[in-house]
This record gives sequence, C-alpha cells and structure tokens, in this order.
Amino acid sequence: MTTGIGSTTAQLIERHRPTLDRALDAIRTREFWSPHPEHPKAYGENAAEEGRAAFDALRGSRFEVPGQPVSGEWTATEVSPYGLEMGISYPRADEGALDALLPVMRAGMSAWRDVGPEARAAVCLEILARISGRTHEFAQAVMHTSGQAFMMAFQAGGPHAQDRGMEAVAYAFAEQVRTPESAAWEKPQGKRDPLRVTKEFTPTGRGIALLVGCNTFPTWNGFPGFFASLATGNAVLVKPHPRAVLPLALTVRIAREVLAEAGFAPDLVALAAEADGDGIARDLAVRPEIRVIDYTGGSEFGEWLEANARQARVFTEKSGVNTVVIDSTGDYRGMLANLAFSLSLYSGQMCTTPQNLLIPRDGIETDAGKKSYDEVVTDLGASVVKLLGDDTRANALLGAIVNDGVRERVDSAPSLGEVALPTREVENPEFPGATVRTPAIVKLDAAKPEAEAGYLSECFGPVSFAVAVNSTEEALALLRRTIRTRGAMTVSAYTTSPEVEREVQEVCFDEPAQLSLNLTGGVYVNQTAAFSDFHGSGGNPAANCALSDAAFVADRFRVVEVRRMTEA
Amino acid sequence: MTTGIGSTTAQLIERHRPTLDRALDAIRTREFWSPHPEHPKAYGENAAEEGRAAFDALRGSRFEVPGQPVSGEWTATEVSPYGLEMGISYPRADEGALDALLPVMRAGMSAWRDVGPEARAAVCLEILARISGRTHEFAQAVMHTSGQAFMMAFQAGGPHAQDRGMEAVAYAFAEQVRTPESAAWEKPQGKRDPLRVTKEFTPTGRGIALLVGCNTFPTWNGFPGFFASLATGNAVLVKPHPRAVLPLALTVRIAREVLAEAGFAPDLVALAAEADGDGIARDLAVRPEIRVIDYTGGSEFGEWLEANARQARVFTEKSGVNTVVIDSTGDYRGMLANLAFSLSLYSGQMCTTPQNLLIPRDGIETDAGKKSYDEVVTDLGASVVKLLGDDTRANALLGAIVNDGVRERVDSAPSLGEVALPTREVENPEFPGATVRTPAIVKLDAAKPEAEAGYLSECFGPVSFAVAVNSTEEALALLRRTIRTRGAMTVSAYTTSPEVEREVQEVCFDEPAQLSLNLTGGVYVNQTAAFSDFHGSGGNPAANCALSDAAFVADRFRVVEVRRMTEA
Repeated sequence: MTTGIGSTTAQLIERHRPTLDRALDAIRTREFWSPHPEHPKAYGENAAEEGRAAFDALRGSRFEVPGQPVSGEWTATEVSPYGLEMGISYPRADEGALDALLPVMRAGMSAWRDVGPEARAAVCLEILARISGRTHEFAQAVMHTSGQAFMMAFQAGGPHAQDRGMEAVAYAFAEQVRTPESAAWEKPQGKRDPLRVTKEFTPTGRGIALLVGCNTFPTWNGFPGFFASLATGNAVLVKPHPRAVLPLALTVRIAREVLAEAGFAPDLVALAAEADGDGIARDLAVRPEIRVIDYTGGSEFGEWLEANARQARVFTEKSGVNTVVIDSTGDYRGMLANLAFSLSLYSGQMCTTPQNLLIPRDGIETDAGKKSYDEVVTDLGASVVKLLGDDTRANALLGAIVNDGVRERVDSAPSLGEVALPTREVENPEFPGATVRTPAIVKLDAAKPEAEAGYLSECFGPVSFAVAVNSTEEALALLRRTIRTRGAMTVSAYTTSPEVEREVQEVCFDEPAQLSLNLTGGVYVNQTAAFSDFHGSGGNPAANCALSDAAFVADRFRVVEVRRMTEA
Repeated sequence: MTTGIGSTTAQLIERHRPTLDRALDAIRTREFWSPHPEHPKAYGENAAEEGRAAFDALRGSRFEVPGQPVSGEWTATEVSPYGLEMGISYPRADEGALDALLPVMRAGMSAWRDVGPEARAAVCLEILARISGRTHEFAQAVMHTSGQAFMMAFQAGGPHAQDRGMEAVAYAFAEQVRTPESAAWEKPQGKRDPLRVTKEFTPTGRGIALLVGCNTFPTWNGFPGFFASLATGNAVLVKPHPRAVLPLALTVRIAREVLAEAGFAPDLVALAAEADGDGIARDLAVRPEIRVIDYTGGSEFGEWLEANARQARVFTEKSGVNTVVIDSTGDYRGMLANLAFSLSLYSGQMCTTPQNLLIPRDGIETDAGKKSYDEVVTDLGASVVKLLGDDTRANALLGAIVNDGVRERVDSAPSLGEVALPTREVENPEFPGATVRTPAIVKLDAAKPEAEAGYLSECFGPVSFAVAVNSTEEALALLRRTIRTRGAMTVSAYTTSPEVEREVQEVCFDEPAQLSLNLTGGVYVNQTAAFSDFHGSGGNPAANCALSDAAFVADRFRVVEVRRMTEA
C-alpha cells in the first residue's frame, strides 16, 4: 500500500530512481560500479578546503541535533589519533532522554511505512547524495576519529562507505518489492463459483533499529545497517563509538534534514551519544522497543548481544583471525609486494588484515626458485621496509594508531615470539602527536604448542605472525581450525597447484569464509568493493552476516498481508 | 560453480524446471496456483485403496531406513487418536548412532553443494513428486498421527503440505541465483590498465539442519523447513514428534531414494526417531554440527531453542493467541457460519484457530439489526450446533482430539468461565476409540481482571472465549496487547466501518500480524494457501519466521566468493 507520497518525495523518486535501478543491476551482475568518485579532486576545486573548514568549525563546539529530545547534558569523548584537539560536545543520551525519544521515534514509523519501499529508497539515496556532497568533511571526521590516513579516510570513509550504504538500499528495495502490493486470488471450485480473495501486502519495519558504531570504520561499517534498517521501514537510533561520534552524528543530522524536508518525522533517525563508561548500548540492546541491532566491534560484546538481545534481530561483525596460506607462487615479488601492502594499510587495524601467514618450514616453490621459510619471512620484511622506507609514503599508508591498546599490543610483540621485522616509529611532521607504527612480523612455529596462544587469538593492529608449518596440508588443517574456532573475515592463499587451490576452496566452502587467490598488483585481500564483493561470509564466528546480501536485509521487515473477500 | 551434474540430475532438471518456473512466477504474483490436486479422486481410481493398503502394511512392522547408521534399537511411540493400533517401530537414534551419523551426513554436503541450486531444486521437486504420488498413504499416516479427519489429513497433509514444500524450494532457488555464478570485475585506473578480477560465487549450506517436527501437522509444518534447508545445500536431520513419526519417516525414505538415484549421498537426509522421554532434540540442538533448526511446537521449547542453540539459525513457530475483533458486519449469518467453521475445523487444534472473540458488551450493528453481546454469542453457538448437528459431518470436520492434554483442557472449560456453548462428545462409528469433541465457547468479561488468565493464555484445542469488551477501541487495545505479549498466527476482524478497518490494520502493521477482514463464505482465517498467503508474520512472539518468504531461506546458506586476478 503506497499512499501519501508528498511532492517532495515524488521528486526524490524521480531524481534517484535511475541510480537505484543501476544499483539493482550492479548487485545482480556484480560487475564494477560506483556512483561515488574516489578522487578527492572530483568533488570540486574548493571542496577539500571547504570540507576542512566545515570540520574545523565543528571542533570545540556543541553539535546540536535540532528537534531531537535530549537530556540537556553534553558529552565530549573524541580524541583524534593525530593529536588534534576535537572538543566536540554531543547531547548525552541518558535514560530520561531515551525514554522520551523512543516513543517519538516509533510514532514516525506509520507514515514511513505507508509511503512504500520506493519512496523510502529515494529518501535514503537523497541522504547518501547529501553525504556525498560533504565527502571532504566526512573524510576529516573519519580521519580524526579512526586515525586513518587522509586518503584512506577519504575513500573508505567517503565513497566506499557510501557505496556500501547504497548497496544496502538496493538490497532492501529488491527484497521488499519481491512480494507484490496486491494480488487477486481466485481458486476454482469445480462447478461452483471460484473463491475470490483480494490480498494486500505491506512491508513493515520491525521497530526501532539500533546501530552500535565502531571506532575504526564508523561510516563504512555503519552505513550498511543504517540504510538497510531505514530503507525497510524501521526507525534508526545511532549509538556511535565514543571515540568516533562525529561521522555518524553528521549522518544523523543530514538524515533528519532530508526526512523533514520530505515530510517525514525527523526522529525516525536519532543520535544516542554517551559519556565514557556510560555503556548505554547494553541497556538499549535489551529494551523491547529495539527490534534490530547492527554491531561492529569486539567479539565479547557481540556475543553478549547475540545471547541477550533476543527481542531483536542482531547483526554482528566481531573479531576473527585472518589467514594467508602460502604454498607456492608464480610471482614471488608480486606476492611479497601485495602482502606487504596488506599488512601495512592502516597499520593492520582492519578486520580484514591478514594475521597469520602459514609457510611450510621446508620452504616454497616460486618463479624465483625455491625459497626457504626464513627467506620468505626475510623477503617479506624487506618488502615492508621498502614499501614504508619513505616517511611521507609511510604516513600516507599507515595512518595513526587508533588507541593505546593497539600501541601496547605492537610494543609487546617481542613477547610473542622471535621478531622477524620489528615495528618502527614514524614521525608525522603534520601531526606530531600521532602515533605511527610500521607492522611487526613475528615468527611462530606451529609445532610448538605454546605458539597457539599467539596465532589463535586476534592480535588487532600491526602485528602478524609468520607461522612455520610442516606442510601445506597442515596449513589447510590449521586454516580450517582457525576459521571454525576463531572466525575469519578474509582468507588468502598463494599457490600454483590446482590441487591446493581446490583444497583451500573446499575449506572456505565448508566453514564458510571469503577467499582471495594469488593476489598480486593492486587488489588487496583487505579491501572489498561494494556491489561486487561480499564483506565477511556470515557463516563463521567472525560475523553472523555478510555485507550485503539478501539475508542482511530480508528479516529487518515483515510483510503483513490483509485479505478480504473480493467484492462481487 | 556448477559441476558434475550426472545424467539423472540433468533429467530431473529437464523434468522439473517448468514446474520450478511456474512456482517462481506464483510467488511473484501471489495469484492462485497449485500443481497438487486437492481431490482424492484425482490420484487414480485405486489410489485410495492402495494408499490404505500401503499404510496398513507399515503398521505393526519395523520401518527400515536402508543404509542409515543406526543404533540397532527400535522404538515405537505412535498412538493413533482414532484408536487404530499403529505398532510401527523406528530405528532409535541414541548418542552413538548420532555420533556415527552426523559426520556421514556432513560428508555428503560437498557434492550436494557443487551441483548447484538448479539441480538441488530439481532433486527436491522429484522428492515432492514422489511424495505426491503417495498422497493417499501420507493421508493415512497424517490422519492416524494427528487425529485430523480424513479429508483434512488428505488435503492439509498432502497437496497443501506439498505446495508449502515447493514454495520453499522456489524461494530457496530464487535466493541462491540472485548472485551470479561468476563476475568479471574491471575497475578503471585512469591512464593505467584497469584492475581485473574474476570472481566466483558459490552458495554453500550452513551445515546440518535439524527439523523438529510437530504432532498436529507433521508434513504441512515440516516440509517448508525440510525443503528450504535441503534446497540451500544443507543436510537435513529429521527428528519427528514421537506421536507423528510416520509422515516424516516416509518423507526421509523417499528423499534418500531420490538422492541415491541422482548420485548423491542418501545420508544427506536422515531420520532421528526417539523413545518417549529421550528428548534428543535438546541435545541435538546445541551440537556444533547443527547449523539450522526448524521447530514447530510449544513456546517453552521454542524459546529455549532460540536462547540456547546459538550456533544455529533457529526458525520457530510457537504458540499464540488468535483474536477476532467483532465490531459490526454487513453479513451476520455469513460471519457466524464462517466463524463456526473456523472454530470447528480439526477441533480447534490449529495454530491458526481463533481463540478470543472480542465483542462489545453493548452489541454490534449488523445487516440483521443490532445484536447484543449475548445474542452474538448465542447465535454463534447455534451456528456451531447447526454445523455439527449431523454426526457424520461433525466427524468429517472435527477429526479426533490429538491427546489427553487437549481433552482435559476442553473438559475443564467450565472452570474458566460461563459456558455459552458446551462441548459435545461425538461418536465415531468407524473408529469407536476416537475422542471427538465439538468446540466449547466460554464467556469472559474483559472488565474482570481474573478473566485475563483465560484469554491471555493459549488454550490449544476446541475452546474459545467470547470476551465482552467496552468498545471496539478497547478491543483494538486488547488485540495489540495480545499480539505483543502472546503472539498471534492470525487476526481476524468484522467491521463495516472504514475507520475501524484502518485501525485494526494499523495494529497488525505495528505488531505485526496477518489479518483477515470480513471473511464469509468458503475462505477461513485458519487456512492459508501456499504461493499466496503468508503463514505467520515472523514479527510477533508466535513465530520468528513466516512461511515462506525470502527471510525464511536466505540465511540457510552463505555465498562464498573466490576471487583471482584475471589472467591477461
């Protein structure tokens, strides 16, 4: 039932329907497509400057969310990993404020439901378009909360995150229109008149969706759940990570503006900022009003959510242990360069960064001859050193260490095993306060039981393990065990053997995990492209969903059928 | 990746693809369609006799499942509600047998995955075709386990269940082919060569799916989960209700035969029968091998599964309290006749049977003039009496009471309130051992707090409550509260007021629940048609899924992506 589409909404449909159709086509073919340019310069001559100015204007001020019921208290929790003074205060969501807010959010859902999937998609795409128009401002916000280097904050926090948001909108739309708005059902009854029933089908959101944001990729990991929930008729309450509020607070404010302009209740999207230690996600997650939860972060709280927030559909991306199986290669230099980049990007602070490199202790066959375990490790270390030898380039790749926990982890790498490549502190001339570290590589031996404590735990940050194994068969068994018990967002393998290729695929099918084979050149295991690559499999302990597929959206709404006898 | 389709499988695809396409069309338009005839005579002149003979041959014997690892013990737990001696023994699944069985089931999954979604759908449709060919045998099996009258056992246990199974196959196929088998991804790099990646996408089952069957609708409620799981690449372990083993045991044996003939491991489908009190579902449900669970039955175990079987995706249909809001009607006699039938069918032992009839205490407007609360209740009772006045017709509609619990419930109806229509014992001349009861109607007053204990609990069986309310507004508030706190598989309403119609829809959108409006004639609130009606909403406590929609199938498999640099 699609009713009451205001003129603004009709305009939005007209404006965005071609983009929606193109996105629907992309998720069907999974060929390359993106409507969001990756180049900073594509956003206009003054866009970079304006974005930085907009960001600077936010610093040291109160971030108002006009119209949203708030407590009157303010909270400022962000700390730029680059040492920049943030000082942005957000309305603190205490229990009283949330008690006032949730019913108001719920109240907006009827009109949001009635307008139908196409209008909801159009409103979502308008929100994305306005976010896209402010990509440089978002880039600054992401950079100074996550510690990503500028170009990565720009791309992953901007166009790539917007792509993932749009992908979720496309899936949400596709799922909702699989059932028609109405059907004329006519069942023959032999010689008697047929039974005639008129049926109407209305996709209806489950309730209020809670988005629990993360520190390292606030937009990239936040947009899919945000837009999937909103596009399927839910209200969305955004609870950012206290260290990465701004990117999602901007998102909330933009969404509220668009919703209001289109004639909907702005409170369909709201911000729940907290003070350090408030822990409001835990309270919110079990409130009966919350019917959908998206979470990215550590496994402990993710598992708590899955166990306790049983009134809600819970989508989690938790931690995992990513493996590279190194069996053999036809491009030794390409492999080393590719791996060096993967380990270095954002100082390994990606849920997709390889952690365990499984290398046969007897070495591997390569196009450059047989390479021993030690040679592979040494050569990989040399590749990292070469990649990051220039400090400007190193800073541009590594970004900053996001918090002290990660810094302590890399500093304590020597306690885990023999350091093959030590971490190096890099100066950042532009931001002297930044903690910048090159990745460390630690040697471990799978034959030693005590090594397990290292390679079978997630070691988030710039530490990876070169694990010596007896054979590729042993590597595959360890891969299987690692995915099954620890989860994996990514698996990567290098081999020239069709048989090994088949075997590693079999492991990834069984467990299941996403596999990249023999990557060299400019495609990296830790990067996935919206509309084409799945992020996570949703089938192992690292995540219970994939970004994005039908399962990511199909249970965020329910279809209510109303049936009546057809009038004669 | 679709490989290794044997010639038999190719033949099955050729045979069943047109049916699959027709089913895909049906779930898209939701117009009437069924490939399974409802009339017993459509199955051939001797089919009824042959079916009964086949059933009789099974009675008093051991039901072998050739090839399946078993314990060597046998268990016979079925008791025909018609008093017929069953005496069918099934292989008892003890822990040792299950320990041997589960790895064998898992081992069959690789080939089942590799063959691809189309072949899996074709094998499933072949299983359904063979089940369809034995519909009369299934009818006897369903009748003598559930207590359904013959015609209902035939239709609901036969063609309607087969429709629901096929619907699940269609959804499973549609979801799996939404992602292409492969994609050529080419990302422009300005003046440099584009990045080229070849991507393969393989739907892969989660693992072993556990089907926990129910007593009253072993096939109708069992087939959707069974076929959804099998069609998406999982192995399926069938744990029938101890009182309704045969319909699912036949299903397992037929499925194993088809799988073997098509070249797959027959152990992809297996039977886990138990002795009374074994409670193996509880143990199985938390085993790590079990990754999907389908359950129909009481809320207590359903909620236990949702809370504890966290390694699995759990789909539950539990109990609920179904409401009829009676505000006004333009067809008083039609309403009464329709309700009388709904209350009587299978003695109210359907999860969709109305329980609470909410009637304004000041009466309702009808085409036959104003009717007081008492008149409505009295007239409804008279309609039931008239419908069931003839014992032959009564037996044909009511079937038998499935177990002593239901019998005790209806016998104790007078303790719940003033009995407006007492239950009546009906003799069944063909099966003198059958317990046959007409529905009781008990008056309750919503103004009396003690009445809540009655109408706010599920009272499964032939007892319904005529609840006096102050107004339709109060009825709607109670409807909302009932759905939200107790769940509802169905909601029904009678009104001539567009405003009330709008309001009751709003409640059903909000909570969400499936709504039938002003049903008269031959369409009943407790019946839903596959390919068109959703059974349950999946959005209230009665069930966490709907039969069937994309959400019912989309998370039973995961898509594993394998990507490689494209060869130059």
